[in-house]
Amino acid sequence: MRLCKTIPELRSLLKAVRAEGKSIGLVPTMGYLHQGHLSLIREARQRCDVVVVSIFVNPTQFGPQEDFARYPRDLERDAALVAEIGGDVIFAPEATEMYPPGYSTYVEVGGVSEPLCGASRPGHFRGVATVVCKLFNIVRPDIAFFGQKDFQQVLVIRRMVQDLNMDVEIVDVPIVREPDGLALSSRNVYLSPEERKAALVLSRSLNLAREQVAQGQRDISQLKELVISRIKAEPLANIDYVEILSIPDLKPLDKLQDKALLALAVKFGQTRLIDNTVLEA
Amino acid sequence: MRLCKTIPELRSLLKAVRAEGKSIGLVPTMGYLHQGHLSLIREARQRCDVVVVSIFVNPTQFGPQEDFARYPRDLERDAALVAEIGGDVIFAPEATEMYPPGYSTYVEVGGVSEPLCGASRPGHFRGVATVVCKLFNIVRPDIAFFGQKDFQQVLVIRRMVQDLNMDVEIVDVPIVREPDGLALSSRNVYLSPEERKAALVLSRSLNLAREQVAQGQRDISQLKELVISRIKAEPLANIDYVEILSIPDLKPLDKLQDKALLALAVKFGQTRLIDNTVLEA
Repeated sequence: MRLCKTIPELRSLLKAVRAEGKSIGLVPTMGYLHQGHLSLIREARQRCDVVVVSIFVNPTQFGPQEDFARYPRDLERDAALVAEIGGDVIFAPEATEMYPPGYSTYVEVGGVSEPLCGASRPGHFRGVATVVCKLFNIVRPDIAFFGQKDFQQVLVIRRMVQDLNMDVEIVDVPIVREPDGLALSSRNVYLSPEERKAALVLSRSLNLAREQVAQGQRDISQLKELVISRIKAEPLANIDYVEILSIPDLKPLDKLQDKALLALAVKFGQTRLIDNTVLEA
Repeated sequence: MRLCKTIPELRSLLKAVRAEGKSIGLVPTMGYLHQGHLSLIREARQRCDVVVVSIFVNPTQFGPQEDFARYPRDLERDAALVAEIGGDVIFAPEATEMYPPGYSTYVEVGGVSEPLCGASRPGHFRGVATVVCKLFNIVRPDIAFFGQKDFQQVLVIRRMVQDLNMDVEIVDVPIVREPDGLALSSRNVYLSPEERKAALVLSRSLNLAREQVAQGQRDISQLKELVISRIKAEPLANIDYVEILSIPDLKPLDKLQDKALLALAVKFGQTRLIDNTVLEA
């Protein structure tokens, strides 16, 4: 496995790969890899000749009051995991390599980036779209892999790819959960033992909604109320948002027809977690 | 010469070109071609194996009160000119091909896009950066060619290419002028005979500034005043801006050291013309 820290280094490596007619898969991550990331890398390994994993805690997608500084980092551990699972290249640039002095260009995706995390975290998806655009231009992957845990992120990136005519296939991969249901997240390490236990309310409230739908509930506001009251029953949980929106446009709905996204963001102490499920009528 | 109206058509054509190992040059235009455009195409012809000329009056770079609807168009004439000069492909999409329903992604370049035409035409460079980003992704040119008449546009595009790690070389080509000094522009057709005559004040005032610099003038505000008073002496001229700014950052200057951009935008009746020159100490 090769570790590249600079753009020219990665480019020259991938130029040789491309010249051999090999396909390239990209798994963009912020590192501190868990089984969710590894399932993306495994999927890439199956579909592409060469698998590039980018590890970059992207400053432009964090707000000024957010956890950029304390976001967990461990490149050595990440590199061992990528090597073990059969990734070929890690691209781990410094922030100044991606955003040198004078940097001033951003990609803005409207519409689908506005509700949910777009409303809670102003500028977040601008940073995501910009760094993913840059990574696509640097790596020129045939396929890029993203986790469904960041469901809205996938929709934003698909919109960007379509609108800007980027020549890359986007594949999204299901959420990986702990045995007790907690969705894997690099931010789970922030949780105290009590918060870790309380955070189970997320997957449980999603399950509750799915059960209600299975039993015939189609009223969106009743489903939302059910999830909200379930989460509020957990004293350590502080709701940021609970929404049920259309797919792929993320517009409000009255009735569940076909399918919809149930997405939530909840704080436990200082730690904000997200989770989601697709409700299918 | 081939005329492509759709993105898939162009892409499949260029895929074959690329498979043969041929280099691709792109000349992005809004059509109604004049000798300025033709000098770009000639430059592309010399440097690249296959020359693509895009002809697209891009709605997103026009403000609501601007001349999008009446901007001159003549694809048949343009096609004959491109064929004559040896262009290989014209890409002339409909607006809905480039911006289908639901379109919502834009590229924003800060800093260099803010003064001059960026201040006079809010959103203009957002539209320019977005359409050029799209064209680069569709065509994937080795080199793209732009005219120095739109000097700020070249700086905005270079900034975007650098910031977003686009793999394309940008070449800029000198302004082409009528024998009497008027810079070529598709908008010159709007001018009445009187306005056409009055518009000579643009190139003359640029020459005047260059002469003053040759004689040792280095004071930016005095040079600006000179140009402004020269233009104001023409009763049909209405100044939008006259500025002398640093290259490539377009920041204000007190003294001319090395070089600077003298740029102006002036209205003659309803017609807004731009012109510029580089002042060299």
